[in-house]
Amino acid sequence: VRPGDDLAALLCHVAPPDLADEDVLSIAHKVVSKAEGRVRDLREVTPSPRAVELAAEHDKDPRAVQVILDESAQLLRAERGILISETHSGLVCANAGVDGSNVEDPETVVLLPEDPDASARALRARIAELAGKRPAVLISDTFGRAWRLGQTDVAIGAAGVRALDDWRGRRDYAGRELRATQDAVGDALAGAADLARAKDSRQPAVLIRGLDRFVTLEDGPGAAALRRPPEEDLFR
Amino acid sequence: VRPGDDLAALLCHVAPPDLADEDVLSIAHKVVSKAEGRVRDLREVTPSPRAVELAAEHDKDPRAVQVILDESAQLLRAERGILISETHSGLVCANAGVDGSNVEDPETVVLLPEDPDASARALRARIAELAGKRPAVLISDTFGRAWRLGQTDVAIGAAGVRALDDWRGRRDYAGRELRATQDAVGDALAGAADLARAKDSRQPAVLIRGLDRFVTLEDGPGAAALRRPPEEDLFR
Repeated sequence: VRPGDDLAALLCHVAPPDLADEDVLSIAHKVVSKAEGRVRDLREVTPSPRAVELAAEHDKDPRAVQVILDESAQLLRAERGILISETHSGLVCANAGVDGSNVEDPETVVLLPEDPDASARALRARIAELAGKRPAVLISDTFGRAWRLGQTDVAIGAAGVRALDDWRGRRDYAGRELRATQDAVGDALAGAADLARAKDSRQPAVLIRGLDRFVTLEDGPGAAALRRPPEEDLFR
Repeated sequence: VRPGDDLAALLCHVAPPDLADEDVLSIAHKVVSKAEGRVRDLREVTPSPRAVELAAEHDKDPRAVQVILDESAQLLRAERGILISETHSGLVCANAGVDGSNVEDPETVVLLPEDPDASARALRARIAELAGKRPAVLISDTFGRAWRLGQTDVAIGAAGVRALDDWRGRRDYAGRELRATQDAVGDALAGAADLARAKDSRQPAVLIRGLDRFVTLEDGPGAAALRRPPEEDLFR
């Protein structure tokens, strides 16, 4: 997939003939970013003094660090070779989501989509146009977590899927208020989709069926609903 | 389910006749804890001065706070009514996993299993004994996360499933070393299982099929593999 490619058309081409409005199409962000031209050529990047310094401290390519700084609203941690940023779109992740793996040209890095929810909405609309069916669209990336080892896929963009299912105020069968009251459905969907493929499979999309209850006619608030406001975050 | 109940027998009773060695049985910890007698009667708890103080500050029941402190190796945050602990078994979560929802008696709270990996191993062995099949067993709980809103189910115990799938040193199709290199498969499985039931469904177990590649003959390191060592954690 290259900048300008019609990703929705490529997806429709391989979608099963019984693609349905109730399906959820989970798409790895990398292929979305590539189609949107969200790539940077490191040969064209001039690292700032700060990038040079951080790169030396953390054994990284200063040009890649410059791209990470460009993509960051705030650098939250820089320790032991790990840079954790908040991106301009409010995601907290390693390297501001800037990634050089699974890219043909080793001098090229892939960025996150600028507005992943908008990307999801655009893909949903274009798929509906081409296929006559309007599945929900979820855009995923692989994030690390505080406290727990290993990465999981999470939803960074969504259209037509209840990414955060709010049970607050609802009660359990005994009438007691539920404690765990906001289900991060978008992240669970992204993680489930990732189980269906291997990391080196080059399969950018997974079709999820049977979860109609999370699919909505409207595009809705997207994966933005999953971003914890900084003032409510105890761990920054 | 009550203390002393043979949970494996109850699960075998409702398992499909074609239960297989390659299946993964994901079980909500609450039913495991109940069977193991990991419950506390709040009427028998005398809160310490510290518990009384914390309870007043955070608008909680001082007896429940005492139980949380008992279950905590360390209290990491206490802000705006939220207590985040590290449990004695090394899990970081709200209220040290102490939970009063979905419990018949409002004066009773449920704790996490004392050693969730041992619980998973015991259940796996007992199911094998009763059913003649030895599916992998995963024990889940619902945790909040830093940075992101909503809870997801994660694996707190596991036997026979590769909870952390390590790709470090492996390469992508272009021969570049992979960045996201440790897949938190256990957590993705727990999250996927949770999608298959509603929060108030009272369904304590979900059978996951088709992921033979994560199932192992040995019980393996369990979900302990997913706990990030404190010294490697940038967010405590």
